[in-house]
Amino acid sequence: MTANSVWSLHPQLAADTVPVGELALARVLLAHDANYPWLILVPRKPALTELIDLDESGQRQLLAEVDAAARALKRVTQCDKLNIATLGNMVAQLHVHVIARRRSDPAWPKPVWGVVPPRGYEPQARAAFIAAIRAELNVA
Amino acid sequence: MTANSVWSLHPQLAADTVPVGELALARVLLAHDANYPWLILVPRKPALTELIDLDESGQRQLLAEVDAAARALKRVTQCDKLNIATLGNMVAQLHVHVIARRRSDPAWPKPVWGVVPPRGYEPQARAAFIAAIRAELNVA
Repeated sequence: MTANSVWSLHPQLAADTVPVGELALARVLLAHDANYPWLILVPRKPALTELIDLDESGQRQLLAEVDAAARALKRVTQCDKLNIATLGNMVAQLHVHVIARRRSDPAWPKPVWGVVPPRGYEPQARAAFIAAIRAELNVA
Repeated sequence: MTANSVWSLHPQLAADTVPVGELALARVLLAHDANYPWLILVPRKPALTELIDLDESGQRQLLAEVDAAARALKRVTQCDKLNIATLGNMVAQLHVHVIARRRSDPAWPKPVWGVVPPRGYEPQARAAFIAAIRAELNVA
């Protein structure tokens, strides 16, 4: 068994997020940034960097889970736009950002990365948001 | 027949790109920015803004075409990382960015948007690049 044979969440992603729940393929995380309702999906398979590292069935499963997360986020936030991206320039472990954007948010219309410093969640607001997303995604 | 019943490429996307070819669902475009080899896929269906506006079969087809474009870009450029994103904050028409990143490019490791002004292609280099991508994608 090599280090690459068991999946674990990249420490930077763990530091930047709080867990929301587990879908069939991906762990769903909430980014520590109350500026934007921001989910991150991380497929629990070792040694993935690019979307094209997943085979067709894995890609389709991830897409279905991104679709579910995006719909959940849209229903819960009533946002103006969804932003979906897999970049991975800073953290190579394959992860997909699913972000709810509002015309009134501090980065609009730019992409969110690097525009303003992350803003902490008020704990009760965060718990309520996570509960709402969990209910939509039917995860514990 | 309403204005929304026939697809046409958004004028801003048309202005910012040059056509590469037609896949089964999406038109493939090359962004006018030689800083980064940068393809954009636009599904030729009217009235799409979000990925979740496509039904499951449309999403799967778009994913397959994004996969093909990403593989083509990777093979032609031998890039360090692929960035794949659908944002649409500026141009609402659904489009997917597929961008080849290098650790030496002017935005690395940031996302490409808004970091440095677009740089024009040398016409011969652009024609050669488009020909290489067309050959990989098997489009005319």
